Amino acid sequence: MIIQLNDNVTKKEIEELIKIIEEKGLVANYVVGEKTSVLGVLGETNKIAIGEIESYEFVKKVILLQEPYKKASRSFHPEDTIIDINGIKIGGGNTVVMAGPCSVENREQIVSIAKSVKEAGAKILRGGAYKPRTSPYAFQGLELEGLELLKEARKETGMPIVSEIMSSDLIEKFVEDVDIIQVGARNMQNFDLLKKLGKTNKPILLKRGLSATIEELLMAAEYIMAGGNDKVILCERGIRTYETYTRNTLDISAIPVLKRLTHLPIITDPSHATGKYWLVNPLSKASIAAGADGLIIEVHNEPTKALCDGAQSLKPEKFKELMDELKILGSALNVKI
Amino acid sequence: MIIQLNDNVTKKEIEELIKIIEEKGLVANYVVGEKTSVLGVLGETNKIAIGEIESYEFVKKVILLQEPYKKASRSFHPEDTIIDINGIKIGGGNTVVMAGPCSVENREQIVSIAKSVKEAGAKILRGGAYKPRTSPYAFQGLELEGLELLKEARKETGMPIVSEIMSSDLIEKFVEDVDIIQVGARNMQNFDLLKKLGKTNKPILLKRGLSATIEELLMAAEYIMAGGNDKVILCERGIRTYETYTRNTLDISAIPVLKRLTHLPIITDPSHATGKYWLVNPLSKASIAAGADGLIIEVHNEPTKALCDGAQSLKPEKFKELMDELKILGSALNVKI
Amino acid sequence: MIIQLNDNVTKKEIEELIKIIEEKGLVANYVVGEKTSVLGVLGETNKIAIGEIESYEFVKKVILLQEPYKKASRSFHPEDTIIDINGIKIGGGNTVVMAGPCSVENREQIVSIAKSVKEAGAKILRGGAYKPRTSPYAFQGLELEGLELLKEARKETGMPIVSEIMSSDLIEKFVEDVDIIQVGARNMQNFDLLKKLGKTNKPILLKRGLSATIEELLMAAEYIMAGGNDKVILCERGIRTYETYTRNTLDISAIPVLKRLTHLPIITDPSHATGKYWLVNPLSKASIAAGADGLIIEVHNEPTKALCDGAQSLKPEKFKELMDELKILGSALNVKI
Amino acid sequence: MIIQLNDNVTKKEIEELIKIIEEKGLVANYVVGEKTSVLGVLGETNKIAIGEIESYEFVKKVILLQEPYKKASRSFHPEDTIIDINGIKIGGGNTVVMAGPCSVENREQIVSIAKSVKEAGAKILRGGAYKPRTSPYAFQGLELEGLELLKEARKETGMPIVSEIMSSDLIEKFVEDVDIIQVGARNMQNFDLLKKLGKTNKPILLKRGLSATIEELLMAAEYIMAGGNDKVILCERGIRTYETYTRNTLDISAIPVLKRLTHLPIITDPSHATGKYWLVNPLSKASIAAGADGLIIEVHNEPTKALCDGAQSLKPEKFKELMDELKILGSALNVKI
Repeated sequence: MIIQLNDNVTKKEIEELIKIIEEKGLVANYVVGEKTSVLGVLGETNKIAIGEIESYEFVKKVILLQEPYKKASRSFHPEDTIIDINGIKIGGGNTVVMAGPCSVENREQIVSIAKSVKEAGAKILRGGAYKPRTSPYAFQGLELEGLELLKEARKETGMPIVSEIMSSDLIEKFVEDVDIIQVGARNMQNFDLLKKLGKTNKPILLKRGLSATIEELLMAAEYIMAGGNDKVILCERGIRTYETYTRNTLDISAIPVLKRLTHLPIITDPSHATGKYWLVNPLSKASIAAGADGLIIEVHNEPTKALCDGAQSLKPEKFKELMDELKILGSALNVKI
Repeated sequence: MIIQLNDNVTKKEIEELIKIIEEKGLVANYVVGEKTSVLGVLGETNKIAIGEIESYEFVKKVILLQEPYKKASRSFHPEDTIIDINGIKIGGGNTVVMAGPCSVENREQIVSIAKSVKEAGAKILRGGAYKPRTSPYAFQGLELEGLELLKEARKETGMPIVSEIMSSDLIEKFVEDVDIIQVGARNMQNFDLLKKLGKTNKPILLKRGLSATIEELLMAAEYIMAGGNDKVILCERGIRTYETYTRNTLDISAIPVLKRLTHLPIITDPSHATGKYWLVNPLSKASIAAGADGLIIEVHNEPTKALCDGAQSLKPEKFKELMDELKILGSALNVKI
Repeated sequence: MIIQLNDNVTKKEIEELIKIIEEKGLVANYVVGEKTSVLGVLGETNKIAIGEIESYEFVKKVILLQEPYKKASRSFHPEDTIIDINGIKIGGGNTVVMAGPCSVENREQIVSIAKSVKEAGAKILRGGAYKPRTSPYAFQGLELEGLELLKEARKETGMPIVSEIMSSDLIEKFVEDVDIIQVGARNMQNFDLLKKLGKTNKPILLKRGLSATIEELLMAAEYIMAGGNDKVILCERGIRTYETYTRNTLDISAIPVLKRLTHLPIITDPSHATGKYWLVNPLSKASIAAGADGLIIEVHNEPTKALCDGAQSLKPEKFKELMDELKILGSALNVKI
Repeated sequence: MIIQLNDNVTKKEIEELIKIIEEKGLVANYVVGEKTSVLGVLGETNKIAIGEIESYEFVKKVILLQEPYKKASRSFHPEDTIIDINGIKIGGGNTVVMAGPCSVENREQIVSIAKSVKEAGAKILRGGAYKPRTSPYAFQGLELEGLELLKEARKETGMPIVSEIMSSDLIEKFVEDVDIIQVGARNMQNFDLLKKLGKTNKPILLKRGLSATIEELLMAAEYIMAGGNDKVILCERGIRTYETYTRNTLDISAIPVLKRLTHLPIITDPSHATGKYWLVNPLSKASIAAGADGLIIEVHNEPTKALCDGAQSLKPEKFKELMDELKILGSALNVKI
């Protein structure tokens, strides 16, 4: 930790600060420059709250040098984490495509989509039972019935299922019913939910918040891991920027950056990132080319009748085309898709 | 609702779309221009999902003309809503300052701060019992004990209390213990929590999410109001932008914009918006000058020993100074503070 | 300057880096912590390019501690700069309102607006002769004729004039004709223009770029000042964010932040920041309450016939109302308007 | 154009507005809905300034349906534009890599880098002679001498050269000396420069501004094309967002979006977008996979001694590796690199 001091700091103030730091068992080195002076603090610096130091009026700035996350950090765990979902591996070179409708609507719809995405090469079935909608008046999902239908689709196809949780009350139910529990972008910092998921043993698909930094995404993963559950799959799904042509801006750089900072698998969601079906194909390819461990893609047999987000859903035949193109791309990149 | 069609749309496609719209009991007017053609849709357009229309390949864009919120809208409720908290009114010309520490730390701290902010002119006591911290390793608040201490401070001073809820499991407890339940920025779109708070009868202080648009903030309020609870106080607390000198950017324009769009009271939180105590004074004045119905400000007797966010806390004497300046400012603006 | 090194840095690499630093006449202190090690560099650190250091593969991050601007910095020039424009002072407690139409359209228009804003209390007349329009097909201003008309309005009213320059070819002409040369947001980092304006002796009104940080704004001022011209007035005019209700987001915090970092005067432009005339009044008040040294406001006698930006222009009677309110506000704040 | 009216608009006001619209030779259809009423305007709607309409107090919002650009629009020019630079084609399926140092430093440096990037497969040599630096105290480029050295490198290798212009005074010189004139991000809306470049016949490499929307980028291209020069190559180089881990955020979606909206070639600049050399490889691949017509990449033989931006420069051997990987990737995508 580096503490930059104001120009007019007094000797007495510096001594006061050093004393406080030392009382916490840390070492403070005072370095005076021509124009600015700093304290370099060594030791377990997370014992000190930044705000505490910054609230001294003679302190100009506090700079943290250590990453605030541990269990999620590659420095503490150099090898890629590989997560096994009923025999399907993700991470460490294993690339997985998850696909399915935005929301589960009825038995026929979910089973038929499940079959067609499986045939095209998807390994995991996605489907929303509880839907986070901006409007309280919009369709909120089939809820418990949706989970039942997903289970039927799993039975018919053998595909593991991933679905979004919106309330910590339902954790037990989700643990029982689904294979991966999804935490949506809007709940990325719902710390109550994260803590409770950390007590389970289920793989968690954690989506990046709309305006979360890469570090905050890792800290959200850390909340889950701190509780004992280290099966976290990260998902870049577009961040909020000033550009309005696309719904959000897919932060493609986040893929190689996360690969360097963490050992957890990283996938992207090109459907939600852009909100437009015709952008899903190029952004899926770009994600894989940038090193993503997988994709989560919306597929609907009749997008014009979808109860939500039809505009971003691929038809099964377009999804098949994409999968075929991804397989060729994968072979050029030495990645099996 | 305006539906803009692609240049190469066929007559058959247009007829298909008109039929679908009419089946929902709406009227569609087809208008063809020189370079672009549109369908104007009249009636209860929220019966149609935008995504449904956008997923037709011959549709270029769908533009909504009606605001998606109702109960929060000033068109449906022209007069200012005034919320009464144990006799203290907020909204409709009643300006209220809430103040207190970031987190409750011990009996002496909370009672002494409560007394000093009351003396300076604050009407409501704020204090965190449950704290949303970026790191799972940071102090998470005194939790239930914090609520007890807040109640003691209320007993000693008579000030109503406001505190943040982080889990829907605790709604009953909060309804019983506090006078205003705060929903933090990170939970602004925790729809499960909002729905459940809509079933209560408590005033809710709803903070704008870090990257929430003004419309999304109003839709979050609508979630609460749709459940039957119309006692919502909105709070602008800084939005996330590219500027890093301040923690967030206080969107001062949101105050007059919200005043126009909604009848709900609007306050600002200059402490969290900036993260720096020396910015609280000018931004408090700017908020009141722009028409805010109040402020929520962090005050700590010993900021350097605060367990969280000391850097943004005012000392009681600085808070007193600010209140005195606000009173003079208020009189120039015909606002009683 | 703090140089954070990678975990696996070798002794040889550190020695290499220290040698390079010392060759530039600087001192490097090596500090090794438990988890991270750093080099603290003392002396004229701006002799080192950050990129040079960052390009060593064993360097993790370079952190600058010194502000990169000098002439614009309050540390080098503690007293407020006061700029005198034909006897009208701005800065150091002198608050000035500039007003006038977006663009000069004809003699009658500019003279009549000039007279009415003067009567209401504006001290300086603004008017665009060259207009930066997003579209090449939009009205680009009356150009040279516009400058002539501005001069006539000055003659009639005695008000100094401010107008925007768009080409360095016209510097001589602008120096001769106007009293303050405005650099628009889009040209804030047109370094060629800034350098050439630095060679003149005219006051410069420098607008913050749409996505410029506060530091970049100060560096743009530094470009002008480095050439010898220290008469720079800074202008906050809204930054680009994800919020689309307003055209831009007025960064009100920038006012007190700039007051702390620099001695130059700071004004705001609420008309361009918001794009809506009904937001000009509350944001003008907020700016003054936050400590701004002035305002620049668009006024048009017939906004519906304005050749540009009519939607954000106040009518003269609304401007008069605003000025009257600002005078009352100013007296509460001990500021003469 | 759709004009949405306020709820309380009067019949007289509507008639007034219709009259104004009809006087401009346009047709206005009045459509009244249950909750909102609109005017649909047909004809050459760019004859009307939006601001003019928006300044009527009874107008709520004006929505443009037509794209504001013409010459750059794919609707007006459906086939891809192919630009020929001394026999090297870009666009319409022709993919080109440009490479070279951030700035030209000396003869040996530029010639040796030119040779090595050519050997690796780059087709065009980049090199800065005039450098837009945030600080007036930083190295500003070798200027005219830099252009001479670039010409020597072209002579030695036969590679066309691209270099950034910063002042319209130098257009004649650049037209004579270089093969592609680059307009940097900071000058994307330097309309004076764009207009003057529109009068030349040189290919222009137009970089997207740091906070420019896709539409604004196309409008900047339109400025050049309106002058008669339709040889514009667009370049996505990262936009400014709240994420600070990377210098900017490469907006990968802009590639397929621009492919749909315009016929002009689109390349990306992964070096400037990220500011980190180790991100250039994955982002180059992602760009090509998303459909980019090329790349512009910084290469330096001794990044640690580069006079600018060393941290983002690839060493020649890393560039060779990247080119080899891109060739394999290209063959999977049916793109020749």
